[in-house]
Amino acid sequence: MLTQSESISSPAPSAAIVLIGNELLSGRTQDTNLAYMATRLAAHGIRVSESRIIPDNESVIVETLNVLRKTNTYVFTTGGIGPTHDDITADCIAKAFNVAIGIHPEAENILLTYWAERDVEPNEDRLRMARIPEGATLVSNPVSAAPGFCMENVYVFAGVPRIMQAMFDSVLPTLQRGAVIDSVSVQCNLGEGTIAAPLRALQERYLDVDLGSYPGRMEGRYMVNLVARSSDAEQLKIVEAELVKLIVDAGGQISS
Amino acid sequence: MLTQSESISSPAPSAAIVLIGNELLSGRTQDTNLAYMATRLAAHGIRVSESRIIPDNESVIVETLNVLRKTNTYVFTTGGIGPTHDDITADCIAKAFNVAIGIHPEAENILLTYWAERDVEPNEDRLRMARIPEGATLVSNPVSAAPGFCMENVYVFAGVPRIMQAMFDSVLPTLQRGAVIDSVSVQCNLGEGTIAAPLRALQERYLDVDLGSYPGRMEGRYMVNLVARSSDAEQLKIVEAELVKLIVDAGGQISS
Repeated sequence: MLTQSESISSPAPSAAIVLIGNELLSGRTQDTNLAYMATRLAAHGIRVSESRIIPDNESVIVETLNVLRKTNTYVFTTGGIGPTHDDITADCIAKAFNVAIGIHPEAENILLTYWAERDVEPNEDRLRMARIPEGATLVSNPVSAAPGFCMENVYVFAGVPRIMQAMFDSVLPTLQRGAVIDSVSVQCNLGEGTIAAPLRALQERYLDVDLGSYPGRMEGRYMVNLVARSSDAEQLKIVEAELVKLIVDAGGQISS
Repeated sequence: MLTQSESISSPAPSAAIVLIGNELLSGRTQDTNLAYMATRLAAHGIRVSESRIIPDNESVIVETLNVLRKTNTYVFTTGGIGPTHDDITADCIAKAFNVAIGIHPEAENILLTYWAERDVEPNEDRLRMARIPEGATLVSNPVSAAPGFCMENVYVFAGVPRIMQAMFDSVLPTLQRGAVIDSVSVQCNLGEGTIAAPLRALQERYLDVDLGSYPGRMEGRYMVNLVARSSDAEQLKIVEAELVKLIVDAGGQISS
């Protein structure tokens, strides 16, 4: 048994996560950014409604942003804000919001200071990282200076996990908080087919608790993880006890 | 330097990958199914156009399927085909295609045989795994018998990686082959800002080669991986040599 603040929240606020990059769709890069953000958003009471992984393609990026920013409280993007020719996210954001894009004085200043301290020569391509859509505010980058930005409800982060994480962590406390839905999980050695009926009956008795069943393997043996989620801590405690009873009644054992 | 068949293919055929499950959006489960499929699809000459990660929600699943199945040669889904109440993918597929769903005699037979050999009692919930949309063909499951299925151009797989992989592997050889785009990658110790200009110039000279720049860290030091992709092996060899020259000219070192 495990109580954790994995926590999916009640209806609003919601977020969509857009991972931008050909390397994710070719299988070359294994994403870890989604789980990083999703875990922390859930604990903050923000429900992740969906995630899309899309290529470095202008029309796809613009269209995806324009759909998701209208149906979610927040949109978070990762990738495509570096200095090279395949970094097109900032331009796509400007296009999606139909605003101009140009060198942001504060971003330029941050970069010039950072480079001066490191004897790095500014050049046209490096300065591309100071190009920010009109009306956006900067998101600081404590790792490598080049900032992310926030345009209305869309947050634009780097794709490199260490930089993305720093940007995300600095933004998270500023976001709207929803009711945090806590979760409990009970793991057992029964097959899903054995407990499906009592689990369904339990779900029907507690409609405000979201019951999920996740089969997997541990130490070479099949097991099922039963997860209950609710913003009602009281009900969650009751359902946790019911889950334990359900497993024992079906002849199963709880594993930790 | 590394030559590999990571391989993104030419325009057609294309695929969308839909990962279904609340546990992916809560951050509870770290997905690995996308990279598994994407790598193998690329080597087969199938381009992954996008991936969506969506919750166990009927209207979202139906809508997502109906968008993606019309714009892609193939759609692959994972998750939601088990026996419990939160397994709703098969019903959603039936709804998306506007067909009936019921017990598939062959699927039922496979399951009854498998259970008989293992002294497992069939029950209503277990038999839910034999419910297949009308007109679909089965995809075999050598791990735990309960089949996936294929409905027109939509392939429906389990979410548990070991089972998904077996299902996917059995389907892959039957899929249309596109021109395989091979890739070469050259890794160096330069900052992206240093090589952005010559890289852009190189991209403009070889428009049929897709050049990408991926910054990262190795053994605590920053590095950049330059990746070139093309279906033209000859051109790829030339561009690889150009990338090496570009790095050396800029004062950098190739790392392996």
